[in-house]
Amino acid sequence: MTKTNAGNFFEDFKVGQVLHHATPRTVSEGDTALYQALFGSRFSLQSSAEVARKAGYAAAPADDFLAFHIVFGKTVPDISLNAVANLGYADCRFHKPVFPGDTLSTESKVIGLKENSNGETGTVYVRSTGRNQRGETVLDYVRWVMVRKRDKAHPAPEADVPHLPEAVEPQHLIAPEKTSFKGFDTVASGSPHLWDDYEPGEKIDHVDGVTIEEAEHMMATRLYQNTAKVHFNQYTEGKGRFGRRLIYGGHVISLARALSFNGLGNAVLIAAINGGRHVAPCFGGDTVFAWSEVLAKAPLKTRDDLGALRIRTIATKDLPCSGFPGPKDKGYDEGVILDLDYWALMPRR
Amino acid sequence: MTKTNAGNFFEDFKVGQVLHHATPRTVSEGDTALYQALFGSRFSLQSSAEVARKAGYAAAPADDFLAFHIVFGKTVPDISLNAVANLGYADCRFHKPVFPGDTLSTESKVIGLKENSNGETGTVYVRSTGRNQRGETVLDYVRWVMVRKRDKAHPAPEADVPHLPEAVEPQHLIAPEKTSFKGFDTVASGSPHLWDDYEPGEKIDHVDGVTIEEAEHMMATRLYQNTAKVHFNQYTEGKGRFGRRLIYGGHVISLARALSFNGLGNAVLIAAINGGRHVAPCFGGDTVFAWSEVLAKAPLKTRDDLGALRIRTIATKDLPCSGFPGPKDKGYDEGVILDLDYWALMPRR
Amino acid sequence: MTKTNAGNFFEDFKVGQVLHHATPRTVSEGDTALYQALFGSRFSLQSSAEVARKAGYAAAPADDFLAFHIVFGKTVPDISLNAVANLGYADCRFHKPVFPGDTLSTESKVIGLKENSNGETGTVYVRSTGRNQRGETVLDYVRWVMVRKRDKAHPAPEADVPHLPEAVEPQHLIAPEKTSFKGFDTVASGSPHLWDDYEPGEKIDHVDGVTIEEAEHMMATRLYQNTAKVHFNQYTEGKGRFGRRLIYGGHVISLARALSFNGLGNAVLIAAINGGRHVAPCFGGDTVFAWSEVLAKAPLKTRDDLGALRIRTIATKDLPCSGFPGPKDKGYDEGVILDLDYWALMPRR
Repeated sequence: MTKTNAGNFFEDFKVGQVLHHATPRTVSEGDTALYQALFGSRFSLQSSAEVARKAGYAAAPADDFLAFHIVFGKTVPDISLNAVANLGYADCRFHKPVFPGDTLSTESKVIGLKENSNGETGTVYVRSTGRNQRGETVLDYVRWVMVRKRDKAHPAPEADVPHLPEAVEPQHLIAPEKTSFKGFDTVASGSPHLWDDYEPGEKIDHVDGVTIEEAEHMMATRLYQNTAKVHFNQYTEGKGRFGRRLIYGGHVISLARALSFNGLGNAVLIAAINGGRHVAPCFGGDTVFAWSEVLAKAPLKTRDDLGALRIRTIATKDLPCSGFPGPKDKGYDEGVILDLDYWALMPRR
Repeated sequence: MTKTNAGNFFEDFKVGQVLHHATPRTVSEGDTALYQALFGSRFSLQSSAEVARKAGYAAAPADDFLAFHIVFGKTVPDISLNAVANLGYADCRFHKPVFPGDTLSTESKVIGLKENSNGETGTVYVRSTGRNQRGETVLDYVRWVMVRKRDKAHPAPEADVPHLPEAVEPQHLIAPEKTSFKGFDTVASGSPHLWDDYEPGEKIDHVDGVTIEEAEHMMATRLYQNTAKVHFNQYTEGKGRFGRRLIYGGHVISLARALSFNGLGNAVLIAAINGGRHVAPCFGGDTVFAWSEVLAKAPLKTRDDLGALRIRTIATKDLPCSGFPGPKDKGYDEGVILDLDYWALMPRR
Repeated sequence: MTKTNAGNFFEDFKVGQVLHHATPRTVSEGDTALYQALFGSRFSLQSSAEVARKAGYAAAPADDFLAFHIVFGKTVPDISLNAVANLGYADCRFHKPVFPGDTLSTESKVIGLKENSNGETGTVYVRSTGRNQRGETVLDYVRWVMVRKRDKAHPAPEADVPHLPEAVEPQHLIAPEKTSFKGFDTVASGSPHLWDDYEPGEKIDHVDGVTIEEAEHMMATRLYQNTAKVHFNQYTEGKGRFGRRLIYGGHVISLARALSFNGLGNAVLIAAINGGRHVAPCFGGDTVFAWSEVLAKAPLKTRDDLGALRIRTIATKDLPCSGFPGPKDKGYDEGVILDLDYWALMPRR
């Protein structure tokens, strides 16, 4: 019997099944420095231990998306090694901040299955939960992914598609315990605009563009121990559909988030991801731009120092965003690569 | 009103104005490791906590230029987002070592203004000061930069050009408090040559060459949170004057400093930068070489364990330095990219 | 007299001579994070402080090869700056784990010399020993390297070729003190296969391929302060034999080791390197694959929680390993770049 991991195929998943993913990972200040070097974020809460302490944290928390990518990476060998496509995310909430020294591990529960009519693939829905070394949930999310069958003849399971919220309800958003953002230092943060200053419908072009190099996206993706083959192997991908290594979709999310500082400089925390769609592939050499629209705003029931903004961030490649490219007709404008819908928390006046 | 930062234009600056720059940044061992990976420095004081402790430090200090680049990076969104050219540095002194755990922030005071005769640009002189979380000055320097006007019709301010020293006077150099370099370990440092062994006029070819990759200079520049657009955006720069992303001048400084180890291996501290000129642009794929000349040497009034060497380091691209290329006629030899004049401190016998 | 290091030539070495190499280096969590980003390893002991503590360690130890590369890097300026070829390694043992905070330094003793018949080069044999700040041996190994003579006329020394073991004897392998791998968590480690499950003769294709970028191997090699010129200088190498920068052989070792996780996921410790041969050069853009054969297995005299596996790992470029390419006739199959023979320790049932 081979000792290499062949991954799970569609018929290996059962609704209700729990997968304990391998490789707990201790986050360090080395990881946060690499994340800084790779994305260039400037949100003051993650950049400065002093800003974090003033808000009640013991230290500067890791970027929320760094935590997400590490938690996500662990699921790849069990969930998506034989995936054809990563179809979507939903109902992702950030429960606890992650600090250097925390050890993250991930568990997934299969919550839905639906075989495709071609009999060759099927959609697997999982809820994945990242926990720290104390067993506390750090974040959880639902992902669905199209997975190949090992054996076309294997009978289809009964279709079971979970109900997923279109967005996390504001009353379900979690603000970090024992913190206070009253009197948040907007000189240090670099933006005078607080929650009170944003209105639904407001569109913000984040202006800047950043070109992605192959070395960068591979280093990032390995940092998360994400082993999806398409990101690393030019020998094989060079013979494939695109002739190129595909960049991990999460890399574009992190870049778009870092770009969004220019206009959303006080959106210091991600509270939830309502949905995310990788509209088109991204490759080494592409220059990524982004813009955002405020979809909604909501106060938090338990906090008057923070408010929630529901933001849609669109990222493009080789296409500046002053014209706010996005969905059109049945698809998207040429050049759009990411459509991300999330809740951020921002200090209030 | 747009919430993105458009940066300041020439007419936005007033002599005497103080700018509190955003994004305090906690330096970590992750940053020093990345700096190591990007430049390959071998100065023993920054490499080894044991060497540093023997000299009286609590831990290995961060490389002086890492501190400089972080302090400098913070000024970009306010000072040079609309810059046409970074014209020069002067009167930079290093006051206190920076350790992992320190949080750096920067403030700049406008000390001079001079509009150009074309009415389209002007030169802004600022003194920028980097401080740690205790408010102690870590380093300060003067920079002048040519900035675009927003409105050509805006009246010119009275020309006010500050007097700047051609070099920091040796008596103004600051040696780190509560340290001693007596009996400095030259086996550990890798060089037997101490302050006593160098003489003004001595020229040293640092021999080695290092090729710069796009991923490297972008990672470095993001590590410093330096947001100057020209370094990151191939889409836009590809249509511009050079057709390429420009490498941050400070990247060349750090590379030249690391190369200078071969010949200046005991120049463990930078005490001052007298002046720096980026003679020609540097691009991904260029191979950087360097050579140095000892311009002067001076004892320190308060210390007999350390002496100061005034060093001029010339860096080139795709041009080995055995022939000591440098200034000639009104310009520089082809291939010269950096002309840097600084004071280093070196242990004495 | 020039102050740059010209390195030692063949006639500078004497049998019995001890070289104290420069630049002690404090390992940090930044280094381990960079190593993670560069190679993507997933061995649970190095990834998780929790897994390490459960086994009795104070913290997650650094990857054994990271320690090796740092110890090795220090020898380059004294041993191999004028090397024509790195001929081999033998008798390498790992004595103590390395943790962030440890400071490594290296000493080498010349144990053999043999001039080549052309009178232009000779082979130098050294035993290099890496120690931590307490003077404890962390690892030691023998390396032999072909070095140029400065002066062809210099008389040849008496040939003195040391006897080197073909492999480290199992009774000489060192397991880490005060640890226990009883009940090792194979869910966390990601592999159910323990020492008991492997048999000599077993071959494992590690399946995945990883493309190397120039920025990656240069960052890695600088992280180790390895100054071998051929890795960094495209200007000079572009005019040379290959027209390209050569990738440090240790980079391929680390990549092959990380790939070997897929099939050897519980081989958490490297106890010894019996021999290593860089069969062919590797360049930026090459995609590295690997496979392994279990050569032998041995219990440890003092431990019943760990057993030793002698493993031969072959790495290739642009050649998937399902056909187990390797030695043939007098050479190797085209595409093979590394032939590494080592002892790993793996938990027992």
